[in-house]
Amino acid sequence: MDLHGGNIYKLLRKGERNILDYSSNINPLGVPESLKKCISENFEILEKYPDINYTELRESIGEYNKISGDNILVGNGATEILFLYMKALKPKKVIIVSPTFAEYERSLQTFDVDIDFFPLDEKEEFKLDFEKLKVKGKDYDLVVLCNPNNPTGSFIRKNELLDLNNYLENHKTKLFIDECFIEFINDWENKTVIDFKSENIFILRALTKFFALPGIRLGYGMTYDFDIIKKIEKIREPWSVNAFADLAGKVILKDKKYISETKEWILGEKTWFYQQLSRIEKIKPYKSNSNFILVKLKTMNSEKFCNLMIEKGVLVRNASNFRFLDDKYVRFAIKDRIKNKQVLKIIKEVLK
Amino acid sequence: MDLHGGNIYKLLRKGERNILDYSSNINPLGVPESLKKCISENFEILEKYPDINYTELRESIGEYNKISGDNILVGNGATEILFLYMKALKPKKVIIVSPTFAEYERSLQTFDVDIDFFPLDEKEEFKLDFEKLKVKGKDYDLVVLCNPNNPTGSFIRKNELLDLNNYLENHKTKLFIDECFIEFINDWENKTVIDFKSENIFILRALTKFFALPGIRLGYGMTYDFDIIKKIEKIREPWSVNAFADLAGKVILKDKKYISETKEWILGEKTWFYQQLSRIEKIKPYKSNSNFILVKLKTMNSEKFCNLMIEKGVLVRNASNFRFLDDKYVRFAIKDRIKNKQVLKIIKEVLK
Repeated sequence: MDLHGGNIYKLLRKGERNILDYSSNINPLGVPESLKKCISENFEILEKYPDINYTELRESIGEYNKISGDNILVGNGATEILFLYMKALKPKKVIIVSPTFAEYERSLQTFDVDIDFFPLDEKEEFKLDFEKLKVKGKDYDLVVLCNPNNPTGSFIRKNELLDLNNYLENHKTKLFIDECFIEFINDWENKTVIDFKSENIFILRALTKFFALPGIRLGYGMTYDFDIIKKIEKIREPWSVNAFADLAGKVILKDKKYISETKEWILGEKTWFYQQLSRIEKIKPYKSNSNFILVKLKTMNSEKFCNLMIEKGVLVRNASNFRFLDDKYVRFAIKDRIKNKQVLKIIKEVLK
Repeated sequence: MDLHGGNIYKLLRKGERNILDYSSNINPLGVPESLKKCISENFEILEKYPDINYTELRESIGEYNKISGDNILVGNGATEILFLYMKALKPKKVIIVSPTFAEYERSLQTFDVDIDFFPLDEKEEFKLDFEKLKVKGKDYDLVVLCNPNNPTGSFIRKNELLDLNNYLENHKTKLFIDECFIEFINDWENKTVIDFKSENIFILRALTKFFALPGIRLGYGMTYDFDIIKKIEKIREPWSVNAFADLAGKVILKDKKYISETKEWILGEKTWFYQQLSRIEKIKPYKSNSNFILVKLKTMNSEKFCNLMIEKGVLVRNASNFRFLDDKYVRFAIKDRIKNKQVLKIIKEVLK
């Protein structure tokens, strides 16, 4: 089984066409027109090395987040930033709030490090027991969490995170927060932890999800910990962000039309899709704060379900390989109404 | 001073325009039209994650080099492959043939490793004394060399490399050869070391130079050492090659027109530009097998020279920070006849 969603290439090579990819959590509005136009008019940027310091790009991202470009690190997708952070921090003991994105664990595997996992309880709808995490987390160098969390969709509120971070900081435990899905939350600008201005926190972001650009590879980190920024700058490879990603970060973050249309879509579709899934007897969806929905199958295992869905042209993420989940779980992306309706119909057929 | 050429962003931010960038060794034919067309028609590839295994891309590169895609590793520029190779091999003692590209040394700096340098002698026009290198190299885990070499332009012939590799292999010393500039050599297909089919050699390549695409970020490694391929695959980050680079590798390597036009340009221009430089009394150019020419200044130091050139709108690579070079050296890219003529005129003015 694949470690990640979105691997439709195996199907494409088999000659499959017209696949509905519900395994990959990408904005269905697609590549912003503003970016297409800008690329078409600027092919010559490929003939230069990108700015090795990415000064303008970092300033643009800073503006979008209302902080200085000096607090920003850019990378070849969020993954590069994640790997660099771990390499620079060199933690000895890490605890990862799980089930979650598999790359946190992978980013640590070449080190001499103890990794533990802090389980989210299904009975509590995967809501974080943050008092318990405080007590447990203080014995580690680093707590890693994803907010909103992939694949559960659960979200931790800002006041809880402030409390958690203060407590951890007193015990010299750093906090790494992946906010790659936060822009799908209404009023996210007031829910991100960046305005704690804490040296103890490192935030991960990407353009992948919200701007439908996983192919362009642009992620960034934000922190007030200038020591870790310096360490990362020292070990990073030059020019890891390609010229088009560099351009994208300067153009699309200013594309107000695309941003507001996306917000409108997710507001309408998230609740509707969840409600429709809730009405299907043989499954249990979990409330999501993001653009995907985790689902528990009551009557069929996930492998069989995914295979039956594929036969009907829908790729679903088998979520059984997430730690603490099992072969009852699958994850759906949220797309536009027409596609969501098609998929709901197919789910019902498959579960009959 | 910058570690690399090509950093024209500082000048651009100052409002400079119309700069002739002779510091960056890029094909003056520019981005292939075939790629521009293909990107314009395929923006939707950005909406998917690239194939995590890059199967078709590796096959395309394999075809170009007449080997199997299984021998190929692709990366975010040649730099990523270089860093991954060092991380996977974990050599204890490395010797780098120098002066050369600074990233070989940088790729080793986070390890516990002894690094030595094997100097190329200016008196011998930087030609490698490969008998000496054999004797010296055998005491190391790894010999690193660049062929043709940046910045000297010197080239080691295949029969010498075969002999060197056989000798080193008997002494359990691996050989890393950077061939990022080899395509600028006439009949390079018969001069690359890939057809030794040696498990002892790892070859580095990029699309940066020949196809004028430093911005797109696509490099690759080739080897018959499947053990190192497995090790690298295990530690690498997913999706490090962006969707457009993935596309480029499938399109431009088949662009016969662009390839033959580039060969024609470099054949004509390399010799001509060298001859013209040779006629200028106050400098000494070194014969190059690539698309750049190293030059020794007889009457001026490199910093002053570069500053005077900048004032006249030409960015030249100050080569004084290459190991074993000093403040007498600068490096020029080779561009088209019109630009080369302009630059020759400006050099003469500056040296007056």
